[in-house]
Amino acid sequence: MHVSRCRNHTPVSTKLGTQGAMNVSELRLRLSRAGQAHLLQFWDELEEAQQVELYAELQAMNFEELNVFFRKATEGFNQSSQQEKVDARMEPVPREVLGSATRDQDQLQAWESEGLLHISQNRVAVLLLAGGQGTRLGVTYPKGMYDVGLPSHKTLFQLQAERILKLQQLAEKCHGNRCTIPWYIMTSGRTMQSTEEFFAKHRYFGLQKESVIFFQQGMLPAMSFDGKIILEEKSKVSMAPDGNGGLYRALAAWDIVGDMERRGVGSVHVYCVDNILVRVADPRFIGFCVQQGADCGAKVVEKTNPTEPVGVVCRVDGVYQVVEYSEISLATAQRRGPDGRLLFNAGNIANHFFTVPFLRDIVSVHEPQLQHHVAQKKIPYVDSQGQRMEPDKPNGIKMEKFVFDIFQFAKKFVVYEVLREDEFSPLKNADSQNGKDNPTTARHALMSLHHCWVLNAGGHFIDENGCRLPAIPRLKDASDDPIQCEVSPLTSYAGEGLESLVAHREFHAPLIIDEHGVHELVKNGL
Amino acid sequence: MHVSRCRNHTPVSTKLGTQGAMNVSELRLRLSRAGQAHLLQFWDELEEAQQVELYAELQAMNFEELNVFFRKATEGFNQSSQQEKVDARMEPVPREVLGSATRDQDQLQAWESEGLLHISQNRVAVLLLAGGQGTRLGVTYPKGMYDVGLPSHKTLFQLQAERILKLQQLAEKCHGNRCTIPWYIMTSGRTMQSTEEFFAKHRYFGLQKESVIFFQQGMLPAMSFDGKIILEEKSKVSMAPDGNGGLYRALAAWDIVGDMERRGVGSVHVYCVDNILVRVADPRFIGFCVQQGADCGAKVVEKTNPTEPVGVVCRVDGVYQVVEYSEISLATAQRRGPDGRLLFNAGNIANHFFTVPFLRDIVSVHEPQLQHHVAQKKIPYVDSQGQRMEPDKPNGIKMEKFVFDIFQFAKKFVVYEVLREDEFSPLKNADSQNGKDNPTTARHALMSLHHCWVLNAGGHFIDENGCRLPAIPRLKDASDDPIQCEVSPLTSYAGEGLESLVAHREFHAPLIIDEHGVHELVKNGL
Repeated sequence: MHVSRCRNHTPVSTKLGTQGAMNVSELRLRLSRAGQAHLLQFWDELEEAQQVELYAELQAMNFEELNVFFRKATEGFNQSSQQEKVDARMEPVPREVLGSATRDQDQLQAWESEGLLHISQNRVAVLLLAGGQGTRLGVTYPKGMYDVGLPSHKTLFQLQAERILKLQQLAEKCHGNRCTIPWYIMTSGRTMQSTEEFFAKHRYFGLQKESVIFFQQGMLPAMSFDGKIILEEKSKVSMAPDGNGGLYRALAAWDIVGDMERRGVGSVHVYCVDNILVRVADPRFIGFCVQQGADCGAKVVEKTNPTEPVGVVCRVDGVYQVVEYSEISLATAQRRGPDGRLLFNAGNIANHFFTVPFLRDIVSVHEPQLQHHVAQKKIPYVDSQGQRMEPDKPNGIKMEKFVFDIFQFAKKFVVYEVLREDEFSPLKNADSQNGKDNPTTARHALMSLHHCWVLNAGGHFIDENGCRLPAIPRLKDASDDPIQCEVSPLTSYAGEGLESLVAHREFHAPLIIDEHGVHELVKNGL
Repeated sequence: MHVSRCRNHTPVSTKLGTQGAMNVSELRLRLSRAGQAHLLQFWDELEEAQQVELYAELQAMNFEELNVFFRKATEGFNQSSQQEKVDARMEPVPREVLGSATRDQDQLQAWESEGLLHISQNRVAVLLLAGGQGTRLGVTYPKGMYDVGLPSHKTLFQLQAERILKLQQLAEKCHGNRCTIPWYIMTSGRTMQSTEEFFAKHRYFGLQKESVIFFQQGMLPAMSFDGKIILEEKSKVSMAPDGNGGLYRALAAWDIVGDMERRGVGSVHVYCVDNILVRVADPRFIGFCVQQGADCGAKVVEKTNPTEPVGVVCRVDGVYQVVEYSEISLATAQRRGPDGRLLFNAGNIANHFFTVPFLRDIVSVHEPQLQHHVAQKKIPYVDSQGQRMEPDKPNGIKMEKFVFDIFQFAKKFVVYEVLREDEFSPLKNADSQNGKDNPTTARHALMSLHHCWVLNAGGHFIDENGCRLPAIPRLKDASDDPIQCEVSPLTSYAGEGLESLVAHREFHAPLIIDEHGVHELVKNGL
């Protein structure tokens, strides 16, 4: 469904009617005042349809605001490279705000129960950040539509949808209320239409259509180092989504927080589309945050190698934030505590908890104060002769906000540490030699986890001779597939409830366990 | 050089002279008594040269001994599958026998100094296990001759030789004595000649020829499940090296312990050829073991994922041993301590410390008691018609001993934990999609480590625009090479001594630092 603000799939030209409706001289004046007059430099060479398109694109832009964004972002960028290194001001997350899936095992049951209670009372929503395009993955469609090659060939969207469905059932079973977990899906101009069509085609994977709410993050133009908006074609501005922190501006623009309030939602789990293992609305995480009285929380995995490229949650000058790996010196990244662990080991995996009042506060008060971050990029452009150029060094910036930029406003911030092998395997790159975070690693991560679920529920795998396979199988080559085992989210959200299906039984892989039962894809392993 | 027992490169046929010297009927009788008469079943079909070769091979075998090995190994194998699971009897390494590069940082300097003192007194040797062939790596020559594609194109053997050279210099500088670290290199029948020739061709990489001592581990025939030796061709027994624990029998056969005693060596660092980061004769490890009064020690890295296929050092029924990953149940592998770490996290990396008296004891007393382990394998064979067959399921066993089988005899056993990224990156597989432990991962591990060394010594890397690169560089794709940086072992053994070369300087990669100075391979990054 859509919320208050109307999305427009109608082609721009029909909205404007004919060229006669364009007031080019007024636009030229506006551009000239903002120092962006060059955007019309090829106007007279354009065909009419191109003129219509460019006119519409430029009319929709607020150049004064863009110039302010640019000035503040670049000021911040230049300051940050001069100011005292962030290293000296970093402090690790103190134990008292940390919940841990490994160190607080005696608490997990209570947190889970608390989380399920909130879910059963319709007080929990999930919010998916899906505005990015799979450029590095090498696809032209939204990442959530990707099939990593599981036996079921389920897409990321389907896995997440089915986990939501299962969690609703678990909450109902546990607390007796039928409930709904609303799913807010942030797309971008590039992914909105195909995402919605995909969900409609798959009938929302069994979810209520009314509980799947699409909205759209903004786009910003790329700018040269001196603040000029870049044309990527004579008739087209170089545009990019405004970062996953564009979430907060979009929450305001689409009145998403209002929608949450109307539904009675109290807390939200925000996550990125690319993590195949994501526990959407994880009741333990929700329960931990709620019990702690937190308004803002981050789920992390332990960073164990100092040079792993992951941002770390920490305090800087007493305020919580994520320090990105590129901002930290090696000496700081290598610091260790008395227990031998890295001092800054709270690896950010873009899994966050927010209360709705906190988000209301962000949207109403703090969002406009958030400066954009500057990313220097190689941005294709048209030169003054109108030739399209591909620069070989950075020639401009993109401006982005980050979803974690709002940690600083939390009144009570908490961190929840989970195991990487249980919960985090992002899909970022295409398969390639020695690659990480690609379809193969995602597929292996999910099947290895589900293999463990079956073993922990008392099942066994046997080889073609009927011999039991060791729990940790010997792979002839590390690139071999692990034991193929896939458990549908409709059967188990996080490994629970499998005993009655697998205990004391022996299986040949590939094994699929779904709502129709337990299936060995190959009979007798042959 | 060679030690007491003489190696024979002369073809077998010339040794035997003519067929006339063969006493086939006596051999037939001997085989018959041992239940191995089938080994001559194709005798009459063989050409004379083949007969000579097979005769020599069989004459050299002790069939009574082999039958005893088989009986004991298979008894042990069958018992172990029936006896109480090892899991229930496992205990983790207690803190008091553990030294840690991360948790005992205040001790490292003292251990290093102690180790260098022993080295300077000619009391430390290294022993290289290099009997395996690079089958999985896909080469036909010894693994140590492999070039993983570093800027210098040094082989594994050269890297290890240069680390020994450097360590001799460091010990001399620290304690004023010129010294030698003897290097014992265990090859097998398959790798002896090519290994020796490679070292001779490269003039022992600058080491004294007399201090590089080659010896050879034994081979054992593959056997069927009912104890019959397997023919892989009509005239050829299926033979394989007797495992890295064949070391101890070879130490006896070649009187290596005697050679150590004559040289006054007190302790030995034993390691495998395939670890590109190996710190041969690591003075910290040696110093720690010596200070603890240990006769036996194991260097380990922390196992952080329960299903990582690595053996763990632990106590079983109060005795230290390595429990292999295939022997452990998932529930045990997943057990965690109150600190959230895996309870069994001492990952074995085949890096061991032994005193020479301990090795003397092993060779004289314990070696014959060590049972072989059974590995069920698919072993190519000739059937009764003489056709060569490639089985598609295991049809026999190979018998192996493991280098860690002797831990049980230690009077004082200690464990030394180091960081994986500093010390362990094994070369096992060929490059392949999503592979691990291959030439690319080995090359990346070494260059990433050396990049850290340069940063920690105060150097900086800059990009083509002269901007400093972040310490943790952003790789467009995880398969990209890291910053290319290689430090010759002749310049630095473990990162020390680089300050005067790099502090406050800026470099373009690729960077090589060697005994001739600091070289940027590409001027101005272009």
